[in-house]
Amino acid sequence: MDKVIDFINVNRERYLDELKALLAIPSISALPQHAADVKRCAEWCADEMRRIGLQNVRLVSTPGNPVVYGEWMGAPGAPTILFYGHYDVQPVDPLDLWESPPFEATIRDGEIFARGAADDKGQVFMHFKAVEAHLKQNGRLPVNIKFILEGEEEVGSENLDGFVRAHKQELAADVVVISDSGMFDRGIPSICYGLRGLVYFQIDLRGSSTDLHSGSFGGAVANPAFVLAQMIAQMKDRGGRVKIPGFYADVVPLQETEREEWKKLPFNEKKYKKDFGIPKLFGESDYTTLERTWARPTLEVNGLLSGFTGEGAKTVLPAVAMAKISMRLVPNQDPNAIAELFEAYVKKLAPKTVTLKTTRMHGGKPWMTSFDNPFVQAAGRAIEKGFGKRPVFTREGGSIPVVSTFQEELGLPSVLFGVGLPDENAHAPNEKLDVSNFHNGIIASAYLYDEMAHIAR
Amino acid sequence: MDKVIDFINVNRERYLDELKALLAIPSISALPQHAADVKRCAEWCADEMRRIGLQNVRLVSTPGNPVVYGEWMGAPGAPTILFYGHYDVQPVDPLDLWESPPFEATIRDGEIFARGAADDKGQVFMHFKAVEAHLKQNGRLPVNIKFILEGEEEVGSENLDGFVRAHKQELAADVVVISDSGMFDRGIPSICYGLRGLVYFQIDLRGSSTDLHSGSFGGAVANPAFVLAQMIAQMKDRGGRVKIPGFYADVVPLQETEREEWKKLPFNEKKYKKDFGIPKLFGESDYTTLERTWARPTLEVNGLLSGFTGEGAKTVLPAVAMAKISMRLVPNQDPNAIAELFEAYVKKLAPKTVTLKTTRMHGGKPWMTSFDNPFVQAAGRAIEKGFGKRPVFTREGGSIPVVSTFQEELGLPSVLFGVGLPDENAHAPNEKLDVSNFHNGIIASAYLYDEMAHIAR
Repeated sequence: MDKVIDFINVNRERYLDELKALLAIPSISALPQHAADVKRCAEWCADEMRRIGLQNVRLVSTPGNPVVYGEWMGAPGAPTILFYGHYDVQPVDPLDLWESPPFEATIRDGEIFARGAADDKGQVFMHFKAVEAHLKQNGRLPVNIKFILEGEEEVGSENLDGFVRAHKQELAADVVVISDSGMFDRGIPSICYGLRGLVYFQIDLRGSSTDLHSGSFGGAVANPAFVLAQMIAQMKDRGGRVKIPGFYADVVPLQETEREEWKKLPFNEKKYKKDFGIPKLFGESDYTTLERTWARPTLEVNGLLSGFTGEGAKTVLPAVAMAKISMRLVPNQDPNAIAELFEAYVKKLAPKTVTLKTTRMHGGKPWMTSFDNPFVQAAGRAIEKGFGKRPVFTREGGSIPVVSTFQEELGLPSVLFGVGLPDENAHAPNEKLDVSNFHNGIIASAYLYDEMAHIAR
Repeated sequence: MDKVIDFINVNRERYLDELKALLAIPSISALPQHAADVKRCAEWCADEMRRIGLQNVRLVSTPGNPVVYGEWMGAPGAPTILFYGHYDVQPVDPLDLWESPPFEATIRDGEIFARGAADDKGQVFMHFKAVEAHLKQNGRLPVNIKFILEGEEEVGSENLDGFVRAHKQELAADVVVISDSGMFDRGIPSICYGLRGLVYFQIDLRGSSTDLHSGSFGGAVANPAFVLAQMIAQMKDRGGRVKIPGFYADVVPLQETEREEWKKLPFNEKKYKKDFGIPKLFGESDYTTLERTWARPTLEVNGLLSGFTGEGAKTVLPAVAMAKISMRLVPNQDPNAIAELFEAYVKKLAPKTVTLKTTRMHGGKPWMTSFDNPFVQAAGRAIEKGFGKRPVFTREGGSIPVVSTFQEELGLPSVLFGVGLPDENAHAPNEKLDVSNFHNGIIASAYLYDEMAHIAR
């Protein structure tokens, strides 16, 4: 391993230059005008996978964006890692809030700023470089590894389930490794053992066939923007509790042991508020901030649009109003069951003065694994070697729906091996990745393959 | 008068061609990128006023867009009309809902479609042509007339009060005539004797310094889009009554005589719902639709914007949320007093989890005049001659703030002499003006000057 680690340390600068090239591709899967960029990014990843020595590299087409596949299967008898990552990124709006262009990666104060730096190109690239170091120095890896990189993670991984089902045998492995999550905090590496699920909706209300003059019609016609506000206001109570009947029925209560562990974590509310410019924290009473985001479900408005939103004043009574609303779920809430409860509740809330259209966008199941899984333990040791510190065990508020897919379709446990930071601005302007964490992440990944090599199959 | 009316009938087609040229100028005062078009429109109007024979025509500069002035003062001893209109228009978004381009006037089914067709270029142009007919055929007008056309009506007439105050002596007159309102219905010409006032606000909430990932933060941080919905929902009750404390204190109750008169008007709720695609009417109980829009105040959401509003799903917890909210006022509500009540209420509604910014955009006082004013009666006779039918007396839900200005600054009564239709789509896509009403409006305008000539000063 020393040769491998030396190689990684020597090539530090080159890795950054290469990563910048990957980050320069605006592979925004949510926007049709970037379809060619998404394709180009898949090809870039395939070329890179060939360069580092992976075999059978190819783009596997799906009804949407292709999956990039590559493997190294030269360690018979050793465990096989299925590595999952994604090469697509979130949209960049509002663009004017970016301090440097989102697709011209810029290093400032030890962080690399670009859309996709943390979510997920930077973390995928870590593994490319760990594999490269092993193959360059030893001519082999201590484990077998199969890479799959999808191009639709940011739009709900609609075609990944089908892809996994269609390639069950080719994807056979012992464990899934995913680097698409964060460390607990700067200097506190962590292993994540639980994720929230997701259900995402768009609601469209229409109150008239066309926008009306608010003077001539105001007071005599329902205002869909007002009706939408009324409906949304009835979705959570003032304490932040979701009011959809049956919403909490299947929620597994937070364990006392977890609460005890999490209370020991160095979480600083003052700093959290200051870092994110939050005037006052808000959430369900009787739960801490970590508990609220890791172990409690929530309902959030992701977007609102109605009427005139430009500068100045336009006296319009809008014809339509739109909201994007999503729910984060915890074990054992089922996304389909929750989606149905939501649809029924929204239908009940909508008055007859408007027409309602509810569109289910995408979803994912919540997920949890156990501490004592040997692959999870191996990951803990690798992290300790890469970062010089024992990791803490945490859950995450975000969703990686594919984790449930791997569990259900392939029967595989997942190890979430992430090096992002809480202020990485994933999905927001000025996304960034800490350069030291990127570097230590490459070392930890190299150790990860080594540690997993010794696990009995 | 016969020669005048003959001239108008003969020139029917030419009038439409000329009007199309005026409608082709995108004089959108709300959008800075159209500043040059607004200026060009003012110049077009001045040129036209010179062509038809008005004198002392000039652009009078203001801190904003210029006022176009022109006069004909050759009838000593006869009354002087101060004609007010506006040459600016509303924005055109959403553009994709227009069936023909908003600035290429198109005649379909006897209506001329274009932004500004009814509000207000078409109605201003009616008077240009009535003046032209008198001057061409008789070499004189039966009254004195002063035209002022402003370029900021659609953005709150911010500089008109100052203009009127600064030119009190030059604007001296006996009556104000404004053609910027509608007829009661197709085939039912009307004279409007009351208008609602307006207060317009923008509310901005901020919950964090940047957009956050709704997975990582959802449930632990206030969502400004949700908070905004909660606040808006508390502004009206389920019956449509405004909940701002003190809001109704100064409202003059609707008179029984007015209710009786309005009940006689041929208002068809079924047709109204069908025309505007309204699933079910809504408003304060105990009031009819006409009463709700003409004689009752209201609060309306004119716009909503927060978070991700594009196609697809973005799991963002928005940093900010914005609403445009306006109130229509009736006699004797005072816009400043209501604005202060609104600001105090909004401040009370906003939780400490967000920062609140409230911006007062513009406003106007409600207005009412009496039936038996001789100028109002003269207008009634002119309408009857132009349209072959006695007009009905109505109020209007919209606001023409300048009517109050003329009352207060110049002590002048206003006559609202409008030929728009309820489905004219002012402020909405596919704005239109009925071609027959436009033509009859020119004839009625020509008679209006004649009828007013005989009123003792």
